[in-house]
Amino acid sequence: MNSETFKLVISYDGTAYHGWQRQRSERTIQGEIEKALSTMTGEPVKLAGSGRTDAGVHAIGQVASFKSSAGLSPKIYAKGLNSLLPADILIKACESASPNFHARYDAKSKIYQYRILNRDMPSIMKRHYVWHIKRALDVAAMKGAAAQIVGQHDFKAFEGSGSPRSSTIRNVVRADVTRPVQDCVLFTIQADGFLRFMVRNIVGTLVDVGSGTTAVNDTQAILLSKDRHLAGATAPARGLFLVEVLY
Amino acid sequence: MNSETFKLVISYDGTAYHGWQRQRSERTIQGEIEKALSTMTGEPVKLAGSGRTDAGVHAIGQVASFKSSAGLSPKIYAKGLNSLLPADILIKACESASPNFHARYDAKSKIYQYRILNRDMPSIMKRHYVWHIKRALDVAAMKGAAAQIVGQHDFKAFEGSGSPRSSTIRNVVRADVTRPVQDCVLFTIQADGFLRFMVRNIVGTLVDVGSGTTAVNDTQAILLSKDRHLAGATAPARGLFLVEVLY
Repeated sequence: MNSETFKLVISYDGTAYHGWQRQRSERTIQGEIEKALSTMTGEPVKLAGSGRTDAGVHAIGQVASFKSSAGLSPKIYAKGLNSLLPADILIKACESASPNFHARYDAKSKIYQYRILNRDMPSIMKRHYVWHIKRALDVAAMKGAAAQIVGQHDFKAFEGSGSPRSSTIRNVVRADVTRPVQDCVLFTIQADGFLRFMVRNIVGTLVDVGSGTTAVNDTQAILLSKDRHLAGATAPARGLFLVEVLY
Repeated sequence: MNSETFKLVISYDGTAYHGWQRQRSERTIQGEIEKALSTMTGEPVKLAGSGRTDAGVHAIGQVASFKSSAGLSPKIYAKGLNSLLPADILIKACESASPNFHARYDAKSKIYQYRILNRDMPSIMKRHYVWHIKRALDVAAMKGAAAQIVGQHDFKAFEGSGSPRSSTIRNVVRADVTRPVQDCVLFTIQADGFLRFMVRNIVGTLVDVGSGTTAVNDTQAILLSKDRHLAGATAPARGLFLVEVLY
């Protein structure tokens, strides 16, 4: 049997996991799916995700690829995986891919969303899926700040420490803040790639702007400084969703 | 110290609990709050809920009352309980109440909501909070059926078995079905009281109507029959929310 390549679109609730990436002794999304794939095919399967998500971060449309010569159809993979996987991981689609397809190397851009619950009362039902902020946020100011990071820039100021990359230059094609309903503030960002903690560090900075502790126009200065200490605190993982990976 | 009476407004995620009512060996909402109250006051405290909710049912505005002579203020109770209680139970308000106030006996009516996710794809993030139904539901038909149960009726046909009550007559003042967004069907019902499984048995019947397996006008016939076997199956607990208790 020749080896075939498959593409998975995956949704998961990251609450109970130590992130996407396989770890020796901790539960991870990649680890769970690889285990289920190995059960189905009877051989070890390596899954390539479009990128890591950190502990507690969720996904609506994570993409991963794998190769197998087990001869199973995409439909059988989707059904089988969903019956084997725990209830907080869902295979939304499985498709045949071209032999060279690789979920990480071929990704053109990714879209993340960050959800803030902006009201006095916390929400029990949303507690794992939002950052609850009581103080009123100025969405117009946050929108103005977000606009300043659009474009190709060195995002070193928003990179988590201890995560050196060959390049910290990324191209942000969209960064917008909206208030779709009164008590919800939504940040959407699309870029060709993301540094570790980049979205959460940008959100921390935007919340400083929305709270009035950082001026709208300081956002660009923080970006240009390449100094992590000038940016805001890292927003909690639970509000972050990997929404879509574009190829 | 004289005994004082307090009213609590409570939100909870029922997923991890064996319902509201205290049980000897299982975790319940009432049990958790009574334990926290006893920790705060140093004495056993009995909590009276407006009514039970079953295992897996949620609340946005459950109400309960208790008496204590510990001399603590409502503000201290709210703060203290929220720091002692697990993350899936939230005290939204604590108020001083008149000495004779009783959350169950004084309740005039209650509002429940039932949430259906009506689309092909399940939702990972909403999996504990909706009933996922793939087939298209006819909301206009469900709305017509819901209208037929409004009024004072004997709701025996919608009562769970093994739960005899002195009277099965209840007054439903509102029963409506809407589709606030494309993939969500919402049932809202307000009544002076509810029989065991009444909302979930009505929802099961409405879904039969929305699916076309029961005619709209059969709803009244099912109600008048007082025969549980003619009504639909019991809808799952996870879609049900106790929204508000009116006094």
